[in-house]
Amino acid sequence: MYKILAISGSLRKDSYNTTILRNAVKLAPENIEIEIADIHDIPLLNQDNESPMPESVALLKQKIEAADGILFASPEYNYSIGGVLKNVLDWGSRPSGKSSWKRKVVGLIGATEGNFATLRAFYDVVKILYGMGMIVPVLSEVPIPNVSTKLDSEGNLTDEKTKEKVKNLLITMIDWIERFKSPHNI
Amino acid sequence: MYKILAISGSLRKDSYNTTILRNAVKLAPENIEIEIADIHDIPLLNQDNESPMPESVALLKQKIEAADGILFASPEYNYSIGGVLKNVLDWGSRPSGKSSWKRKVVGLIGATEGNFATLRAFYDVVKILYGMGMIVPVLSEVPIPNVSTKLDSEGNLTDEKTKEKVKNLLITMIDWIERFKSPHNI
Amino acid sequence: MYKILAISGSLRKDSYNTTILRNAVKLAPENIEIEIADIHDIPLLNQDNESPMPESVALLKQKIEAADGILFASPEYNYSIGGVLKNVLDWGSRPSGKSSWKRKVVGLIGATEGNFATLRAFYDVVKILYGMGMIVPVLSEVPIPNVSTKLDSEGNLTDEKTKEKVKNLLITMIDWIERFKSPHNI
Amino acid sequence: MYKILAISGSLRKDSYNTTILRNAVKLAPENIEIEIADIHDIPLLNQDNESPMPESVALLKQKIEAADGILFASPEYNYSIGGVLKNVLDWGSRPSGKSSWKRKVVGLIGATEGNFATLRAFYDVVKILYGMGMIVPVLSEVPIPNVSTKLDSEGNLTDEKTKEKVKNLLITMIDWIERFKSPHNI
Repeated sequence: MYKILAISGSLRKDSYNTTILRNAVKLAPENIEIEIADIHDIPLLNQDNESPMPESVALLKQKIEAADGILFASPEYNYSIGGVLKNVLDWGSRPSGKSSWKRKVVGLIGATEGNFATLRAFYDVVKILYGMGMIVPVLSEVPIPNVSTKLDSEGNLTDEKTKEKVKNLLITMIDWIERFKSPHNI
Repeated sequence: MYKILAISGSLRKDSYNTTILRNAVKLAPENIEIEIADIHDIPLLNQDNESPMPESVALLKQKIEAADGILFASPEYNYSIGGVLKNVLDWGSRPSGKSSWKRKVVGLIGATEGNFATLRAFYDVVKILYGMGMIVPVLSEVPIPNVSTKLDSEGNLTDEKTKEKVKNLLITMIDWIERFKSPHNI
Repeated sequence: MYKILAISGSLRKDSYNTTILRNAVKLAPENIEIEIADIHDIPLLNQDNESPMPESVALLKQKIEAADGILFASPEYNYSIGGVLKNVLDWGSRPSGKSSWKRKVVGLIGATEGNFATLRAFYDVVKILYGMGMIVPVLSEVPIPNVSTKLDSEGNLTDEKTKEKVKNLLITMIDWIERFKSPHNI
Repeated sequence: MYKILAISGSLRKDSYNTTILRNAVKLAPENIEIEIADIHDIPLLNQDNESPMPESVALLKQKIEAADGILFASPEYNYSIGGVLKNVLDWGSRPSGKSSWKRKVVGLIGATEGNFATLRAFYDVVKILYGMGMIVPVLSEVPIPNVSTKLDSEGNLTDEKTKEKVKNLLITMIDWIERFKSPHNI
């Protein structure tokens, strides 16, 4: 069994990105267990409050560390990473020297109502994840433009191509997780 | 009188960046009034809660709109913009079409204990501010590496070069504010 | 009269971006003179050969310095700035301390056959131009996706919206050039 | 035996980055063969001239394809990737659909005379390499600031820490090359 922690960069109740993550849970092959992290209780980063860590952050860090891979789904805000997602990334990398993200294998989904999905934000996100020491597989992004046309009224993905892409993303993540199972030399 | 709103990207009580902003208030020429925005009450962005805007956000948006320029001071988190600052930027750009940031003249300060200040984050910040339609003056960044060696025990900037740079940044901001006072053609 | 130097990031004879620059020459208001720089003779940067500068580079630097603004048109290569354009930027910034680009007002055009124009590359280009001390006006980009559908067989822009955008870009450049005519304080 | 192709982003005869690559050849463990590509004959990209490819480009593409990994060493130009290196990257990705870079494992070295090495450029380079489908190992960068103090008069690396870092970079590359030897699923 592979464990993947899924994190949505939107706090909206009916967030498209969270909806896609719920679909990923159902689309996942039998050997993959996806848990969607609830980040509503994660406060804004304040280093005055990190010893001890806020309970919600400590719990999130445990879940990150227990996972084989992290699946992010996020909208684009102002052509870059949203503050909500960056805040989660920042907390997970604290305290200094105790980052929970290191060498976790990443998958990326970006759903938007518009035509361009999150093309510009992906770039910044990839750069930041790389800088945090995460393992970002080749072509590990699934942009989902015009997302509302690909969901039915109950939030089920109906677009076969998109379903295929999400499934392939999970398979790629597992492929990379397997490759990095053996201990690294350095 | 020019009005500058200063925003710190750190919520820490003794944040170096907030400390530098307090110095900027004192260093400002007589014709500049700097107000440091209190962003502790700004929640994480949730578009479900934007009509009406949270009171703290509505107030911040008013202050941004009333200001001639915005002075940001922020640490670097994971080589990029921090979640705290990005969250403020995201709120200020909401709701869609009602951004408060447009055509505001920017100044940037990045104080860190380390040697490299916020060199890598500045780049991302500039790109994001540009993408939000803000006016980013040429060479409008003041990196302050090794900041703790440049402050006395009461948080006063003692390094003359740094004081000069902060003062010059304010003068540059005013110079650009003046240039953009007349209405633009398009 | 305002003088604008136009530089295409493609060396192809029938380059879409060069074609758009030729259209810009015709679309320009009467008070704007646009010269398209010929960069075919600019060699790859080699600092061993910069004293004296290669003749083609020396001439280009003269033209940059004589211009009020620089209009770049470039395709996207590998989601970023192309090597051809970056090479021109690098030469123009040499030798150290003698950059010809400083405080020149910029306009940006990105034409592509595909749907996404040069959305991702614009971001890198803006960041680089800012870093070189150029003045990048707010919203100074004109992406032209599906460019082949907007040109007739003789390379004339037929799409009225695109013509309007190119014209407005030139007017914005002049607006900013005017604002920066008076000497700056710092 | 592992084959690594090394590419310097500087054409200068006494380039620090090329010098470091020559040291890497000597520092390499016995099972690694490093060839330094000569890119002086690679012309500026012109898609009019890509069928057939210029001889120098065709030869370079062969060498890239035959290599297990690519070791780049490059200065920073205008805080980003240099035009010389980007031009090589662009050619290697042509013609469309026939990129030679895909799934090659990367190592990065950035030597500079100054204090900041190529911190800002690395970021852009990593992003571009990722976008081209290359495999960028975690922490695969070796910045070498103040490089001239770390070389003797004959260009031999004398700084033990730097030698160690270069050696470790090669070992990391081999570690990743091994992990990706088995065919991937997608």
